[in-house]
Amino acid sequence: MFISFEGIDGCGKSTQARLLADALRAEGRAVVLTREPGGSPGAEEIRRLLVEGAGERWSAETECLLFTAARRDHLERTIRPALAAGQTVVTDRFADSTRVYQGAARGDLRALVDRMHDLAIGVEPDLTFVIDLDPATALGRGIARGGAEDRFESLGLDFQRRLAQGFRALAQEFPARVRLIDGSGVADDVAARIRAAL
Amino acid sequence: MFISFEGIDGCGKSTQARLLADALRAEGRAVVLTREPGGSPGAEEIRRLLVEGAGERWSAETECLLFTAARRDHLERTIRPALAAGQTVVTDRFADSTRVYQGAARGDLRALVDRMHDLAIGVEPDLTFVIDLDPATALGRGIARGGAEDRFESLGLDFQRRLAQGFRALAQEFPARVRLIDGSGVADDVAARIRAAL
Repeated sequence: MFISFEGIDGCGKSTQARLLADALRAEGRAVVLTREPGGSPGAEEIRRLLVEGAGERWSAETECLLFTAARRDHLERTIRPALAAGQTVVTDRFADSTRVYQGAARGDLRALVDRMHDLAIGVEPDLTFVIDLDPATALGRGIARGGAEDRFESLGLDFQRRLAQGFRALAQEFPARVRLIDGSGVADDVAARIRAAL
Repeated sequence: MFISFEGIDGCGKSTQARLLADALRAEGRAVVLTREPGGSPGAEEIRRLLVEGAGERWSAETECLLFTAARRDHLERTIRPALAAGQTVVTDRFADSTRVYQGAARGDLRALVDRMHDLAIGVEPDLTFVIDLDPATALGRGIARGGAEDRFESLGLDFQRRLAQGFRALAQEFPARVRLIDGSGVADDVAARIRAAL
């Protein structure tokens, strides 16, 4: 099974991906916990180009190509081998992030994103959890965390609001695959909502 | 005018691109001499991922995405602004290199390369010079030059032969745009052939 977590920075998806991986392992499953951009040695190198530096370092079109390149490497070197070995893959972000960030919030590039995905990726998770949290709360968490990987956070609150809207819209666009999860409250409460949905 | 130089590593195309840029400047033209992968600050960073490291570091599909990302940035930040300002652009490699390296010699990906190009680039040079040189001679020059950027050279002589074949085929595929230039002899002789063709 291939499960992804999506949502804006600071929504808690990385924590929830880890908690779900832990819970599945406690049930005896072999789980690969991974993330995007990154998740394989080559894709982690591409990640550095994407998440560090100035907000306008790349155009949305170039970003789309770089995210797709990283995703292709992640798919080839980490996701496909794990699924072929019968393992469960839990990833913190996948193609939905590109649909929302480059397809809607950074430009009107959804058609480009979709065609690039069809050409080079062509795979969707079996199940996607979108963690829905108030953008102001999420942005505060992300800034509090600090660090060098703040390129998208530096684009500001209006941008985070467009992103949150885009992630919510995914649940309507892909109702069979995407589950919208209330991200408010403590991590254990959110984890319980995810287990109930699973 | 937008002019590209193509051919296998060690064929002399970088020298010839420089000599042509110098000659056009001596005639009073404003010339931007550039190269791929690279040619803009962002694309030069992507270049390092592509030309350094082990031969099998990336699949041909991931390479195609990375080269296209670098080309998009090069086009946006260097080529289009120069052409818009009325300058002549002379580039050491452009999309034909991806057609030959990833489209023919590293895999049978020509359809993917073409669709990616149509989606994200969509521009061709006005004129392309393919410098044709015996692959064994060219490979010897490249190895003699040394340095860290030897990822494609490390793929060996058979690979260089497939590349040389692929570049020659371009002249037949795009007869209006691509000129095949005999790369044997000293640089001044090759430069004279290029000026005659121009």
